[in-house]
Amino acid sequence: MITIAIDAMGGDHGVDITVPAAIKAVQHHSDLQIILVGNEAILREKIGNTPNINIHPATEVVAMDEAAASALRGKKDSSMRVAINLVKEQRANAAVSAGNTGALMATARFVLKMIKGIERPAICTALPTIQRPHSWVMDLGANVDSSAEHLLQFALMGNALLRAVDENPSPSIGLLNIGEEETKGNESIKTAAQLIGATKLNYYGFVEGDDIYKGTVDLVVTDGFAGNVALKSSEGVAKMITHFITAEFTRNIFTKILGLLARPPLKAFKRRIDPRIYNGACLLGLNGIVVKSHGGTDAFGFEHAISVAYNQAKHDFLGKITQEMAKVLQEEQS
Amino acid sequence: MITIAIDAMGGDHGVDITVPAAIKAVQHHSDLQIILVGNEAILREKIGNTPNINIHPATEVVAMDEAAASALRGKKDSSMRVAINLVKEQRANAAVSAGNTGALMATARFVLKMIKGIERPAICTALPTIQRPHSWVMDLGANVDSSAEHLLQFALMGNALLRAVDENPSPSIGLLNIGEEETKGNESIKTAAQLIGATKLNYYGFVEGDDIYKGTVDLVVTDGFAGNVALKSSEGVAKMITHFITAEFTRNIFTKILGLLARPPLKAFKRRIDPRIYNGACLLGLNGIVVKSHGGTDAFGFEHAISVAYNQAKHDFLGKITQEMAKVLQEEQS
Repeated sequence: MITIAIDAMGGDHGVDITVPAAIKAVQHHSDLQIILVGNEAILREKIGNTPNINIHPATEVVAMDEAAASALRGKKDSSMRVAINLVKEQRANAAVSAGNTGALMATARFVLKMIKGIERPAICTALPTIQRPHSWVMDLGANVDSSAEHLLQFALMGNALLRAVDENPSPSIGLLNIGEEETKGNESIKTAAQLIGATKLNYYGFVEGDDIYKGTVDLVVTDGFAGNVALKSSEGVAKMITHFITAEFTRNIFTKILGLLARPPLKAFKRRIDPRIYNGACLLGLNGIVVKSHGGTDAFGFEHAISVAYNQAKHDFLGKITQEMAKVLQEEQS
Repeated sequence: MITIAIDAMGGDHGVDITVPAAIKAVQHHSDLQIILVGNEAILREKIGNTPNINIHPATEVVAMDEAAASALRGKKDSSMRVAINLVKEQRANAAVSAGNTGALMATARFVLKMIKGIERPAICTALPTIQRPHSWVMDLGANVDSSAEHLLQFALMGNALLRAVDENPSPSIGLLNIGEEETKGNESIKTAAQLIGATKLNYYGFVEGDDIYKGTVDLVVTDGFAGNVALKSSEGVAKMITHFITAEFTRNIFTKILGLLARPPLKAFKRRIDPRIYNGACLLGLNGIVVKSHGGTDAFGFEHAISVAYNQAKHDFLGKITQEMAKVLQEEQS
């Protein structure tokens, strides 16, 4: 059995989305057990006696705009903190939260500690592409600047993640740059290219922003600043395009009728870039599996974040990355 | 009269797009005169005796994949170089080229030199947004890393540009970051926020990637690495979305008919994000106006790049930014 602890109170909508998502998730995975962490009375009323779902009490909730330090020091009995504690105590294989990223990262790092050999945690998520069902990008904002060594560690973690969750034996890895030529980029990028190129990883070379969505490689590695800018800019363009399409199809009665007629292909298109099926970012580098859901997602999206955690646990991502790093450290010493 | 020198041989399609674009441009602007720089025989045959278009001979062409250093040292009679020389010699008010960015930037910097007080040139372009007709973003890749001082200089240049071409007396300026809180970001961003905040510029604060397309501010300032990543990622998403929409509307005979019926709103939507009407990136910081067109654009797109140069020259961008920097240097000394 895989056991996942869920911060049931986190996110913009709390139990209204976490509970239905948990019920769906245990229905989909027969070897999944969920521990809902939060207000016991509310949760008890909501779930009744659903099989494979248990409740673990927590009296506090981390606010969505709460500073990481305040959550860490002041809310030791928060649903977020207690869910992570359950991972630490090995009573759960993974934790999932839609709570605020800063508090989640700080709490997870404090409670679980880092894997030996990894200096900085990183955030990794899957995105839709033209050529592949998805590609992964990391770091998405856990770090504001990263040395070449950090970028190498990101590549090692991402490689272990994709070997686990995608069952991809040798994921291709690209380094995000502002040109494909070897002479482009700043010093840390150039050094990182040499470091990653010297490993046994399937290193592709430099890629550019548009390669993320072309699906040129399985994994795009970048520092958290550029990764976050890439992700947010992409969200911005996608929203603008959706806004303009809607505006054109609602311009007059004629275009409204066309919009109704064209609903099936327009809906099919929207499904292909539905952010909910890409919901669930992996916090990597920690001694435990933690998945961050988008704060504003619905039950369908949150269930996807649960699946991301489930897949990591089921395919022993943590074992793989820990072994990998032990090997790297051994090679460095010898 | 405004006189613009055009690198007629540059870009993927050379004279096939630069000549028709030049003819259209002089028809649209009665006070515009164009000097087409390149192969005299070919150009003479193409333009005949079109009023307000002259030809200036150049025997060489910079290749699209040519290294900047090779173009700079080896091709002193290239159409690109000669067009920029005409600006230097004050025989033209601006130069436009669809040739390769690296060579154009290196040549322009060598020939024209930098404006006093500006240490690094930067690339600035307009992009579509939901709230405003467009917003500007800079730097888009002239620099791989930028100090806080450089970011301040970008803000000053961008401010002068928007005052000139948009006739916007006080453009709002945002600094691209990975969060809106003051505590977010790396040291150079935080220092840049203080530096820009201490000027008389209309500083808005930090913005994120999605704010570019929301149109939160008139001008987004960032270093060339993040700016390039934002632009390329955005292009990638837009292409992926167009690809998916086309795929859904061509899936079967039924959706194909729907696609035909829905062509007017779909076309209207495409016009709103047509990259050709945003073609023409300004190379700022130089003692002269230089505009870079996308290499693969068509005559319609290239004509837009000519308009960008025309607007800068017409509204005396160069005078505005030179005055502005002289004032800044004077204040620093006193």
